[in-house]
Amino acid sequence: MLTTTDLDVLIADTEMEMARVIAAAEDERTAELYGWVRFHLGLDADATRGKRLRPLLGLLAYQSIAGEHQRALPGAAAVEMGHNFSLVHDDIQDSSAERRHRPALWTLTGVPQAINTGDTLFTLSRMALHRLSDLGFSAQKVLDLMRLYDETCLALCEGQFLDIRASEGQAWMSVEYYLDMIGRKTAALIAGSVKAGAMLATDDDGVVEAYRRFGWALGMAFQINDDMLGIWGDEASTGKTPSDIESRKQTLPLLHALEHAAETDRAQLRAILHGPVPTSEDVAAARDILERAGSRQSSRGRAASYRDEAVLQLRQSGVVDGEALARLQRIVGSVIAA
Amino acid sequence: MLTTTDLDVLIADTEMEMARVIAAAEDERTAELYGWVRFHLGLDADATRGKRLRPLLGLLAYQSIAGEHQRALPGAAAVEMGHNFSLVHDDIQDSSAERRHRPALWTLTGVPQAINTGDTLFTLSRMALHRLSDLGFSAQKVLDLMRLYDETCLALCEGQFLDIRASEGQAWMSVEYYLDMIGRKTAALIAGSVKAGAMLATDDDGVVEAYRRFGWALGMAFQINDDMLGIWGDEASTGKTPSDIESRKQTLPLLHALEHAAETDRAQLRAILHGPVPTSEDVAAARDILERAGSRQSSRGRAASYRDEAVLQLRQSGVVDGEALARLQRIVGSVIAA
Repeated sequence: MLTTTDLDVLIADTEMEMARVIAAAEDERTAELYGWVRFHLGLDADATRGKRLRPLLGLLAYQSIAGEHQRALPGAAAVEMGHNFSLVHDDIQDSSAERRHRPALWTLTGVPQAINTGDTLFTLSRMALHRLSDLGFSAQKVLDLMRLYDETCLALCEGQFLDIRASEGQAWMSVEYYLDMIGRKTAALIAGSVKAGAMLATDDDGVVEAYRRFGWALGMAFQINDDMLGIWGDEASTGKTPSDIESRKQTLPLLHALEHAAETDRAQLRAILHGPVPTSEDVAAARDILERAGSRQSSRGRAASYRDEAVLQLRQSGVVDGEALARLQRIVGSVIAA
Repeated sequence: MLTTTDLDVLIADTEMEMARVIAAAEDERTAELYGWVRFHLGLDADATRGKRLRPLLGLLAYQSIAGEHQRALPGAAAVEMGHNFSLVHDDIQDSSAERRHRPALWTLTGVPQAINTGDTLFTLSRMALHRLSDLGFSAQKVLDLMRLYDETCLALCEGQFLDIRASEGQAWMSVEYYLDMIGRKTAALIAGSVKAGAMLATDDDGVVEAYRRFGWALGMAFQINDDMLGIWGDEASTGKTPSDIESRKQTLPLLHALEHAAETDRAQLRAILHGPVPTSEDVAAARDILERAGSRQSSRGRAASYRDEAVLQLRQSGVVDGEALARLQRIVGSVIAA
C-alpha cells in the first residue's frame, strides 16, 4: 500500500503550485470565482486531501530520471487542474450532487457559473505550464509539452463524448467500444502525465515512449479495477456501496457477460438491464450470471495483464532513481487489487 | 459599409483552416461529435456565412504589416474556434434556444453533450495554433502566442463570471463594473486577435502594443454600439427587435440613467426594472427617461471616443499595406454606427 508520508511532500508541493497559479490570476472583483476554483480543487481549509494520483505519477516519473521533483511541478499542477476541470463538467453532465464527500460545485453555484468555473480551471491548467519557461526549459520543450497536453485533452473530450452517448442510451457498448472509451477518457490522461514527466527529464525518445506505455497500461488497469470494485467492491475499503449493476452502468464485466454468457443468462441479464430499476434480487442474479460467464475472472485477468505490461514497461524505461522507482511500483500495487 | 467581396477570401481561408483542424482530429467513432462542432461553427452545407469579425481583424492586422495573410491563418482559426467555444457554453448558460437563426447546439444534443462539445472546441482552438510551427514560426514565437491566447481566454472566463453574476441578480452593475465586464468579455478577445496578428508579422513591441490598443478600443466601441442597438436599434437593419429594456439587460445606457437621471426618473426606472415584465408602455417610458438623462448621448459619445482612439492607434501603428489599412478602417466604420 501507499504510505502517505512517502508522497506527502509531492502532494503539498503540487497544491502550492496550483495555489500560486490561482493567486497570480485573481483580483478583487473575481475573488468569488477563484474561491470556487479553490473549493473544487480541495485547496480550501475544510478540504480533505485527495489522492492526486495523476500529478504524483508525473512527478515520480520525472524524479525517477532526474532525481528531484521541483522542476516538474508546473506539469503536475497542469495535469491536476485539467483533470479537475473535467470533473466539474462531469458532475453537471451526470447530475451528480456529491464529489469527495462534499457538494458538487454546480449545487453551490448553479449550472451556469459551474460551467464557467470549469472553463476557468481548464484555462488555468494551461497557464500553469507557462511557468516551465521561467524554470529554464527551452521554448521547444515547453511547446512540445503543450502539444502533448492539447492532444490529451482532446482524447479526454472524445472519451467523454463516447461515455455520455452510451450512458444516455444512444449506443449500447461492446467490449471493444468500452476499451476505446476508457483509453481516451482515463488512460490518455495518466499516460500523458507520466509522459510529460519523462519528457521534462530526458530527450531520449525511447525512454519517453516506455514511460508513456507504462502510464497507458497503468491507466487501463486502474479503470478496469475501478469497474470491478463498482460490482464486487468491499464497502468498508472503498467507502461506497457497489452499485454499478443497480445504476446499469456499462462496464467491462457486464459487457463481457452480454457477449459471452449462455443464451438464457444473456436474455435474463438484458431483461434486468432494460426493465425497471433493478431490485437487490436482480443485482444478485446478475452477479451470478457474471460469475457463471467467467466475466469476473476475465476482467481480473485483463486488469492483471495491463498491470504486468505496466511493470514491464517500467523495468525497460531507463529509471535511474531507485527510491522513485520503488514508489512507482508501490502505486502500481496499490491501485490494482491483487 | 463592408463589402463582402473584399473579405470573402479571408473568410473562406479561415473556414478551410478550421475544417483542416477538425478533419485531423476526427475518426469514425467520433464523427457525430465533430459533426456538432462543424454545425456550430457554421461549416456545414446549410450554414449561412457568419461575420467572422475576430479572425478577420487578426488577419488584416497581420496583412497590414506583412502584405499577405496565409501564414496568420492558424491564429485566425484559433480565435474563431475559441470565440465559438464560449458561445456554445453561453447559450446553455443563458438558456438561449437560437443562434444565428438556427437551433442552439444544446437544443439538438442535450446539455451534457453540448458542454462537452464546447470543451472539444476549446481544445481544438489550441490545436489550431500548433500549425504555426509547421509554417516555420519559431518555438518562442508560438509559445508567446499561446500565452497571449491563454491570458485572453482567462479574461473571457472572468468577464463571463461577472456577466452571469449580474444577470442572475447577485450584483447590480455600476457603469464602472459594466466597463470592466465588457473589457474582459468582449474587448480582450478582439484585442488579443489583433495583437496576435501583429505579433506574427513583427518583433517590434511598440507596433504590437499599438495594434493591441487599437483592438481593445475597437472592441469597447463595438460592444457599446451593440448595446445601443439593443435599445434603439432599427429592426430592419439589425434583424431583431430591440428588447434589452424588456429583458432588463444591464447595459451602459440603462446603468448611466440609474446613476444620472433625476431622482423621480430614477425611482420610476427602478420600479420598471424590478417589477413585473415591462409592458410596451414601460419600455417607452424607460426610453424617455434615458433620453432625458442624456444616457443615449453619453453612450454614443463614449462609443465614439473609443472609436476615435482606435483610429488614432491604427494611424500610429506602423501599418505598411495600404489596402489592408483601408479594410481595417472600413471595419471600424461599419461596426460603429455614426
